[in-house]
Amino acid sequence: MDYAQFFRDKLNALKAEGRYRIFADLERCAGEFPRALRHDSDEVADVTVWCSNDYLGMGQHPVVLDAMREALNRSGAGAGGTRNISGTNHHHVLLERELADLHGKDAGLLFTSGYVSNMATLSTLGSRLPNCIVFSDAGNHASMIEGIRHSRADKQIFRHNDPEDLARRLAQEDPDRPKVVAFESVYSMDGDVAPIDEICDVAERYNALTYLDEVHAVGLYGPNGGGIADREGLMHRLDIIEGTLAKAFGCMGGYITGSSDLVDFVRSHASGFIFTTALPPHVAAGALASVRHLKHSDAERQALHERSATVKARLTAAGIPVAPSYSHIVPVLVGDPEACNEASWSLLRRHGIYVQPINYPTVPKGSERLRFTPNPHHTDADVDRLVNALTDVWQDLGLRAAA
Amino acid sequence: MDYAQFFRDKLNALKAEGRYRIFADLERCAGEFPRALRHDSDEVADVTVWCSNDYLGMGQHPVVLDAMREALNRSGAGAGGTRNISGTNHHHVLLERELADLHGKDAGLLFTSGYVSNMATLSTLGSRLPNCIVFSDAGNHASMIEGIRHSRADKQIFRHNDPEDLARRLAQEDPDRPKVVAFESVYSMDGDVAPIDEICDVAERYNALTYLDEVHAVGLYGPNGGGIADREGLMHRLDIIEGTLAKAFGCMGGYITGSSDLVDFVRSHASGFIFTTALPPHVAAGALASVRHLKHSDAERQALHERSATVKARLTAAGIPVAPSYSHIVPVLVGDPEACNEASWSLLRRHGIYVQPINYPTVPKGSERLRFTPNPHHTDADVDRLVNALTDVWQDLGLRAAA
Ligand SMILES: Cc1ncc(COP(=O)(O)O)c(C=O)c1O
Ligand SMILES: Cc1ncc(COP(=O)(O)O)c(C=O)c1O
Repeated sequence: MDYAQFFRDKLNALKAEGRYRIFADLERCAGEFPRALRHDSDEVADVTVWCSNDYLGMGQHPVVLDAMREALNRSGAGAGGTRNISGTNHHHVLLERELADLHGKDAGLLFTSGYVSNMATLSTLGSRLPNCIVFSDAGNHASMIEGIRHSRADKQIFRHNDPEDLARRLAQEDPDRPKVVAFESVYSMDGDVAPIDEICDVAERYNALTYLDEVHAVGLYGPNGGGIADREGLMHRLDIIEGTLAKAFGCMGGYITGSSDLVDFVRSHASGFIFTTALPPHVAAGALASVRHLKHSDAERQALHERSATVKARLTAAGIPVAPSYSHIVPVLVGDPEACNEASWSLLRRHGIYVQPINYPTVPKGSERLRFTPNPHHTDADVDRLVNALTDVWQDLGLRAAA
Repeated sequence: MDYAQFFRDKLNALKAEGRYRIFADLERCAGEFPRALRHDSDEVADVTVWCSNDYLGMGQHPVVLDAMREALNRSGAGAGGTRNISGTNHHHVLLERELADLHGKDAGLLFTSGYVSNMATLSTLGSRLPNCIVFSDAGNHASMIEGIRHSRADKQIFRHNDPEDLARRLAQEDPDRPKVVAFESVYSMDGDVAPIDEICDVAERYNALTYLDEVHAVGLYGPNGGGIADREGLMHRLDIIEGTLAKAFGCMGGYITGSSDLVDFVRSHASGFIFTTALPPHVAAGALASVRHLKHSDAERQALHERSATVKARLTAAGIPVAPSYSHIVPVLVGDPEACNEASWSLLRRHGIYVQPINYPTVPKGSERLRFTPNPHHTDADVDRLVNALTDVWQDLGLRAAA
């Protein structure tokens, strides 16, 4: 085995397929978001970011930054230990309570990321519930898929957002067998939204636990920012609501919320929770400030949804193929990895607009896209520039217009 | 299936076995470490922490805090995206270069934690190298075990720190089959150290990749803080050196270093790297400052090793059963979970000394222990108090003295 050759060959294969990823080397500028600096061109250049998941710009909100600065001064850089071994800090405890309250649950549990919260929780439930079977939406995120896979529980993939297909599959299983139905509220690449109520009806009929990933919805939907289930008054129907602190809340970390015993069970058994250093106290403090702020302030949410509607309407009017989306996300289909890379590169080089190409395996082959995430800090002038730039690039590259 | 009953029963079983974990609710006090505040007693109480993995107190070092404050002011709270989608910040790039240099490698790759770096890298190598077999030290950390397990590669567990057993097992395999030997330098619960040179000899003989976890050694050993392999001049013999930014470096995050192609391969394929929000830029900035500082300053390392030797000698002289340790870690064996919990609780309540009991599954049943981690900021008076307190608690609980 020639390891060096093997790695080289695999990298060359990715390059040949147009799937080799080059990361933009950015410098975020607090207070000027979505403006950023690019460090990977010959000289440092200004760009407008159109693909950040800091959906509301909370990553630069004074309330968040003040809380972080204060906690950094008070408690220092890191947690210094796992949650069990000296790493639990009072901010973790307060944040877990706040998140439980946000979702109307008894208890919350923090993880180092949303990825880890999905992976650790689903692998714990799938492996510890005896003879468990997991029903997983076909569109689920990699972190859920990996968690289910790691559990080695049996798995059934149901058709995306299709409660009837789910019901058919549930009906075929032994009624006494433990079951988990795992799905998302907002699917981040298409921007479509799950029929939560119907899925919960079906799950209830077959006595399955419900696990909802609200990663792309927390902070953004519902009167308190509890997500789509909050908006629709359905939070009580979910056994577990999972979220991230790294997107709308602008910080880092992930969590689950649910009944005290369920959360305590995961806390006590999940390897990915137990055997890792806790989040820095000041990161928990920043997230706490962000969650609290968005519980009471609706202004950021309203501005986001207005900006998103405006961008969708303007791009559609300009003949750009915006895919239908029922959320704040604005996917523009290209359908080819090379063209997608080129469009992104042109936008960056000629227009100072940064939007990363989204290629396989993040999305299926043939559905390569540019995924725009408007936010409250994009001005009208930013939107104008975006529409003009896309029109220009679409013409220049001869890309497919809207049908 | 009555889920609620199931979770309740399992929690009760943990409680009956003395394995139910109660987290101390602490508040770290930057500038006063290892002093901290406890929030879980009736009133907020002072404690001296003796079980932090912020081994050098870098979590409160001005160089680290200044770098974090500056980057927080400049770039805000979170990264706002995955590394590929707007989340790469210039501090990540600089830190990856610095880590590569620290270990004498071409390239470095950051992860959200040491846990994720082990899990993601080993699962990627194990699953992507065709027909790979992983040879794993019997004492390996949960994060490595989970990564190997998740890869579904064949696995052989070799006797802890035993190159001969490893050689026997390697000799039995097809020479052409891809092989990975995964081990640690400092094993954190016993404080023993791997025979890196011999293990590398064996791995080389059988053409296996070598993967070394230096999580409990980076920053602490070697002229530049590169770990045990740095101290012993062996870094060039390891294909992959993995570490954390959350222990001696005082922050959060994990990483691997290795050849450019290998690291690029992991970057391009590892789910746990790709599908998660990047570390906050200011956390990377703090870690960068910490790594750089410890590259040039030996004072913290020297002070740590002096403190550790002093604590070992003083406890041993007092008849406390310190287990043999070849590192800075000071394990004191108790051998029973209930007694371990009681000793910890007594130290806390009666002496204001916080050391978490370490029970199964973190250590094997029968080897339950208190694990002390001296650091440069523990004063002579702290050590005196510790020795007196342990003597008192040992007598009071009738615990086993040193043989
Ligand atoms: C649906 C979904 N779940 C979970 C995650 C992971 O969250 P985090 O970035 O906090 O790891 C992501 C994206 O990163 C996601 O899109
Ligand atoms: C040997 C070893 N590897 C990896 C880890 C995980 O590192 P991190 O805390 O950065 O997740 C730990 C402990 O937490 C460890 O003890």
